[in-house]
Amino acid sequence: MGDAALHDRAAVAERTRVLCGALDALEWITDGRVARLSQDFNWFSPVLKRQLEQQRADAVVRPKTEDEITAVVAACARELVPITVRGSGTGNYGQCVPLHGGVILDLSAYNRLLWVKPGVGRAQAGIRLGDMDRQMREAGQELRCVPSTWRSATLGGLFGGGFGGLGSINYGPLAARGNVLGVRAISVEPTPRLVELRAPEALLLHHVYGCNGIVLELEVGLAPAHPWLEAIVCFDAFEPALAFADALAGAPGVVKKGVTLFAQPIPDLLLQAVPLLAGSLQSASHAVFTLVAEFAEDALQQLVQQHGGRVTLRRTAAEVQKTQRTITEYTWNHTTLHAMKADKSLTYTQCAFQAGRHTQQATQMRAHFGDEVHTHLEWIRNLEGALTCSGLQLIRYTGDERLAAVQQTYREHGVSIANPHVYIVEDGKQGRVNPEIVAMKQRFDPLGLLNPGKLRGWEQRHQLALPATERPALDTLPRF
Amino acid sequence: MGDAALHDRAAVAERTRVLCGALDALEWITDGRVARLSQDFNWFSPVLKRQLEQQRADAVVRPKTEDEITAVVAACARELVPITVRGSGTGNYGQCVPLHGGVILDLSAYNRLLWVKPGVGRAQAGIRLGDMDRQMREAGQELRCVPSTWRSATLGGLFGGGFGGLGSINYGPLAARGNVLGVRAISVEPTPRLVELRAPEALLLHHVYGCNGIVLELEVGLAPAHPWLEAIVCFDAFEPALAFADALAGAPGVVKKGVTLFAQPIPDLLLQAVPLLAGSLQSASHAVFTLVAEFAEDALQQLVQQHGGRVTLRRTAAEVQKTQRTITEYTWNHTTLHAMKADKSLTYTQCAFQAGRHTQQATQMRAHFGDEVHTHLEWIRNLEGALTCSGLQLIRYTGDERLAAVQQTYREHGVSIANPHVYIVEDGKQGRVNPEIVAMKQRFDPLGLLNPGKLRGWEQRHQLALPATERPALDTLPRF
Repeated sequence: MGDAALHDRAAVAERTRVLCGALDALEWITDGRVARLSQDFNWFSPVLKRQLEQQRADAVVRPKTEDEITAVVAACARELVPITVRGSGTGNYGQCVPLHGGVILDLSAYNRLLWVKPGVGRAQAGIRLGDMDRQMREAGQELRCVPSTWRSATLGGLFGGGFGGLGSINYGPLAARGNVLGVRAISVEPTPRLVELRAPEALLLHHVYGCNGIVLELEVGLAPAHPWLEAIVCFDAFEPALAFADALAGAPGVVKKGVTLFAQPIPDLLLQAVPLLAGSLQSASHAVFTLVAEFAEDALQQLVQQHGGRVTLRRTAAEVQKTQRTITEYTWNHTTLHAMKADKSLTYTQCAFQAGRHTQQATQMRAHFGDEVHTHLEWIRNLEGALTCSGLQLIRYTGDERLAAVQQTYREHGVSIANPHVYIVEDGKQGRVNPEIVAMKQRFDPLGLLNPGKLRGWEQRHQLALPATERPALDTLPRF
Repeated sequence: MGDAALHDRAAVAERTRVLCGALDALEWITDGRVARLSQDFNWFSPVLKRQLEQQRADAVVRPKTEDEITAVVAACARELVPITVRGSGTGNYGQCVPLHGGVILDLSAYNRLLWVKPGVGRAQAGIRLGDMDRQMREAGQELRCVPSTWRSATLGGLFGGGFGGLGSINYGPLAARGNVLGVRAISVEPTPRLVELRAPEALLLHHVYGCNGIVLELEVGLAPAHPWLEAIVCFDAFEPALAFADALAGAPGVVKKGVTLFAQPIPDLLLQAVPLLAGSLQSASHAVFTLVAEFAEDALQQLVQQHGGRVTLRRTAAEVQKTQRTITEYTWNHTTLHAMKADKSLTYTQCAFQAGRHTQQATQMRAHFGDEVHTHLEWIRNLEGALTCSGLQLIRYTGDERLAAVQQTYREHGVSIANPHVYIVEDGKQGRVNPEIVAMKQRFDPLGLLNPGKLRGWEQRHQLALPATERPALDTLPRF
């Protein structure tokens, strides 16, 4: 289809209206809620906020069955209405913000756990990660890696726009071989096809923001569900906190799920934003947030002692379950959220340090930027299984140029930036993607209706105009 | 006590005879079986064979209860009779070969599983590793790391003289923090004390060959018992075999328990020694033996394809259990055993490559020695959790001097040797041990009766004569 058909917003809105009418048995949202459902957490970025905050779908549909989804998709294909898939909207890069109006396909009601076997589970895309974990707990299993937004984020959303998170310290990012076994996808055509894709082919739909196919079901690797002990360990100085975190993260006999380091002033920002943390986190300290198996507590205590830390919070798995309060909701990009509450001048970036040089690089970059950048590190294993840490640094925002310069300085020091201030798929990945990803769009979305305007390889191939966006330097990473 | 009391073999034998008589309710062995029960697999080393093959205890006792053990230990202390603790005698360095006669305390009948909780189990020292695994399978758990001798080797033996093995690719060596939580030890005194030692103190009794305390019970970290698929993958060339093994070993999303690489001619030696392997292993190939979770089979197949390998054996967990045939019994030092059957001119060494440089070093050393050294690699995580591999190279034996020179060449190339041709504890560890290990002997064996002659730090402190032994170059590793 041509460019014009999508860029005439009024015509798209009219065709969407027709489509709602034709499928009036489905759950449609066309009132004021559409504005909220057209957005995600892209406002973490002052750049994206400016670019995306006015974007709106014309309607949101919330199907409950595959038949309903098929009906919507078929109708959109016939009427040439853009489709932007949404889970819970916890992404940070406008993954689910429609650039050309049309329909938001909200999959949050398509959320059944289909089956669980040892090591593998399958669910509908709209299942919330926390719900999936809860339903699998009886079987002694849980998801391998989840973002800090696990309570609301969906499995399909994690696959479509996410990276990994808690648990990636064991299993690496979601993209690591073995974590996703297969997906069921639907093509956007007048007569949609339903196709099972197995890994590695299935991964061609990963982190493409739903631009090259709609994922209906996911089959993912599972992890043993250990009873996780939550602990906060505070240190007077940065160096022992870093050494402790790295030693704990590496220790092969200490079963764990997450290790997070917050240098000052992040603990103070958290204390300010989250009154509940009072007493659990020492002001003026550097803090390490850890999840280790309860049976690894002695080993944790040995490491705390050895590095001169103080345990300021200790919560058993039962206590976490009973109180529904968990420190995981202060880690990864929840930290960004809370810190921005406490200090409106902050924004952030995301990076991957080089495995083996990661503590050295983190120390070096901290010294380099001083007060301008606050150090937040999350330990993970990379795609090859080497221990490293991701940085989710908080940056004092003083303008787009300076923000770009800070990120560029990281790159110049050999640290890869996963730029969270861009919304084009390629701009988060070396400026280009595997051509097979674009070929996948030809297969599943020949009319170019899925989340249009975000896959540069497709737009260029079809000579479509891209919305104005800064072209970032080359980056190599999926974003968190 | 003085040196002379132990070095007068006839007097020791006489005192042992008296002791047997005094405790005649216990199970004693004093017949021809004593010779076999005084030995282990030290004959893998032509050096140790020469030094140790004549060594004999005067009697073997096989107690069934803590009371029986206490009675033996108290009597030995009163009568000044040396005690050498034995599990199943699967060690390779003469760990359980008595140098001064006396009593062998065979703990193989002291073998009850005491309890299993999520992530932790406790058992009596004489439990066979395979029996412990079998009994824990219902609880969905298994031991974290076991040697290839798991079928007969005991938990106490693994702790007292072992390293780790299968599963160390996840949990590192047994010595890694969190793998051993505590031990119950008994002192050798006329009135023995029973003491619970927790980690890290408990580790002071690890890999000291029962020289500085007798361990009666062990509390160890457990792993989830996945259904392990066994596969052999053959390659025409060494390089892709190495790349495949390293990629599989590192892959964080591929759940696994072991990755072993045999360069030519080891697969041919195995085929010659083990007729059962015919059809499961290609002649003239380089072979990788793998254990991955059944649910990771697709990921395994992807890696096999990517590296151009051929799966020549595939056995499900159920098939392994039904047939009781497992490829694990061709890995680690079982490989050495089988290869020596096929070629009597072989001996071996053991080494640790540097994490991160391990594949490069293995390739380099293989080229350096050509036909003289056969490459056998076992992937593990080291104490810090970094992926590396251990080498259990087979060496064409042409004399002690050349054997020492080969090992020295490894050291000169930055590869640590875990010399299996020495029986003094320190000679396997930098030529010295933590002084706390010797202090532990003062605490648990003030009379110097435990496995005398093997802890140089003690002998020197007490100005005892050591038996003649070559003093090796500095090494840094516990041995497998």
